[in-house]
Amino acid sequence: MVYIGIDLGGTNIAVGVVDEKGNILAQTSTPTLPDRPYPELVKDMAGCITTVMDKGGITQDDIVSIGVGIPGVADQKLGTVIFCTNLGWHNIPLREELQKYINKPVYIDNDATVAGLAESYAGVSAGCQSSVFITLGTGVGAGITINGKPWSGAHGVGSELGHMTLVVDGVPCTCGNDGCVERYCSATAIIRMARQACLGCPKSLIMKLAGNDPDKIDARIVIDAAKAGDNTAVQVFNRFAKYLAITINNITAFLDPEMIVLGGGVSKAGQFLLDNVRAQLPRYLMYKNLPSPKLELAKLGNEAGIIGAAMLGRE
Amino acid sequence: MVYIGIDLGGTNIAVGVVDEKGNILAQTSTPTLPDRPYPELVKDMAGCITTVMDKGGITQDDIVSIGVGIPGVADQKLGTVIFCTNLGWHNIPLREELQKYINKPVYIDNDATVAGLAESYAGVSAGCQSSVFITLGTGVGAGITINGKPWSGAHGVGSELGHMTLVVDGVPCTCGNDGCVERYCSATAIIRMARQACLGCPKSLIMKLAGNDPDKIDARIVIDAAKAGDNTAVQVFNRFAKYLAITINNITAFLDPEMIVLGGGVSKAGQFLLDNVRAQLPRYLMYKNLPSPKLELAKLGNEAGIIGAAMLGRE
Repeated sequence: MVYIGIDLGGTNIAVGVVDEKGNILAQTSTPTLPDRPYPELVKDMAGCITTVMDKGGITQDDIVSIGVGIPGVADQKLGTVIFCTNLGWHNIPLREELQKYINKPVYIDNDATVAGLAESYAGVSAGCQSSVFITLGTGVGAGITINGKPWSGAHGVGSELGHMTLVVDGVPCTCGNDGCVERYCSATAIIRMARQACLGCPKSLIMKLAGNDPDKIDARIVIDAAKAGDNTAVQVFNRFAKYLAITINNITAFLDPEMIVLGGGVSKAGQFLLDNVRAQLPRYLMYKNLPSPKLELAKLGNEAGIIGAAMLGRE
Repeated sequence: MVYIGIDLGGTNIAVGVVDEKGNILAQTSTPTLPDRPYPELVKDMAGCITTVMDKGGITQDDIVSIGVGIPGVADQKLGTVIFCTNLGWHNIPLREELQKYINKPVYIDNDATVAGLAESYAGVSAGCQSSVFITLGTGVGAGITINGKPWSGAHGVGSELGHMTLVVDGVPCTCGNDGCVERYCSATAIIRMARQACLGCPKSLIMKLAGNDPDKIDARIVIDAAKAGDNTAVQVFNRFAKYLAITINNITAFLDPEMIVLGGGVSKAGQFLLDNVRAQLPRYLMYKNLPSPKLELAKLGNEAGIIGAAMLGRE
């Protein structure tokens, strides 16, 4: 038996056939073109399902269920998308619409939640009964797994790690609050802190790598410069890592999962990121002599979206 | 069938016989006298069990299990107390020691966790599958219930809400970190903020109620003065309520439980506290138009410790 996983992003719709162990057997994708009416997007999802069924040599009888990871909030009982900023979706009956094409159970959950679930099935947190997966990208998201099952909250509005307050009255956030985690632990935060730092240190390697144009500074440049030992970049990166270590400690103090997993674009900094954050963590741990969550890098990369969405049907 | 619940505090050991619905059928208590060797404390616990069995007219055959709520960290698998600052306990084999007196299953968990469990069985959050119970006292603790079961974390070091960072580089905390929730949302925090505020406003009603002795200011005085409309007290209380609202929103953004319950000494401010925090919450909610956790006052008071400890055996 196999599971269909759909990763609905703002740019692409990626669809795959996934086996019970979380291996992708076949996959395809198509541009999202999010400005279209939603039935057209759903029609494209159904088309992709047909394509991957052909590619994988499977029939409808082989399919247990369809799972969809969305960049927003889902009502899992009703099978609707409550809210999806990037797509401009509000209360979209996604399950009902998708079942017009293929009559299988349809599960919907947040994209960070399903990415975390994927790591718990087939990635670094495989075998962990509880984990928190953190996506460090333009923003900061999280996928929580408890007792082996994804947890998006009683009302579906949980796992919004990026919008927990880290600094009361801190940097204003796009969500309307101030001092959100996302303003200190994202690629966007690294860029903001680097631009500020380069005002005082225009000879930083950051500026050189950005062609002396502050607008061209991105997180990768800052990380490369920090790896090369540039003073300004090291200071910016350490500050970012400090905020991330405090956030990780907050997760430990509150939920204490078996493992905390770092994913998303910034996690491509790899061992450099892991070593830096691990070095700062003990400073913040409350019970320094007791076991605490392992901190690891995500393994699955972009495929986590398809795998995790598919695995929603295994719950 | 009945359950024995033991609330092990720094001052008293309270023991009760509890039925399946969480009603206390008989109870007793004895001073903890924490400086004694632990076997003596356990002997007193066993003595209290005999007393409540007599009082309740029950035999050993009626007892399903014994639960103990401790002010510290337990290893639930081994049945040991890992860590208990107030009692000076480290790696105490509590289950083994207690079973020398009465051979029943023994469950051990954190006191805030069991108080939250009690509210979920017989209190305000009865029927909720997920809840976070917050104790607002000298410090700040929490009891997390997920899928109807208590959650203390994968390593037993979770639900330490009071030691999540709320303000990076904020007020130094007794735990060694800076800016912990406990430094802003406890009775201790109210007292600190009130003393500071009274330096500039020595004619505040707070000072009058404290006999013009800043050392005599306590949380109750500040709350009474705020209820009476004293400007300084209202400002202090609103600031406290703001920090608490942000903390509550952090719980919502991350875990999104069905209900968040306010307990502990400061919650005796009752509706005045609830109204103030509820009024500040919408400002911080990310999804202002979606359902979010209910905020309520705890119902069970001091008995929550016995009831929740007893209910550990129902899991």
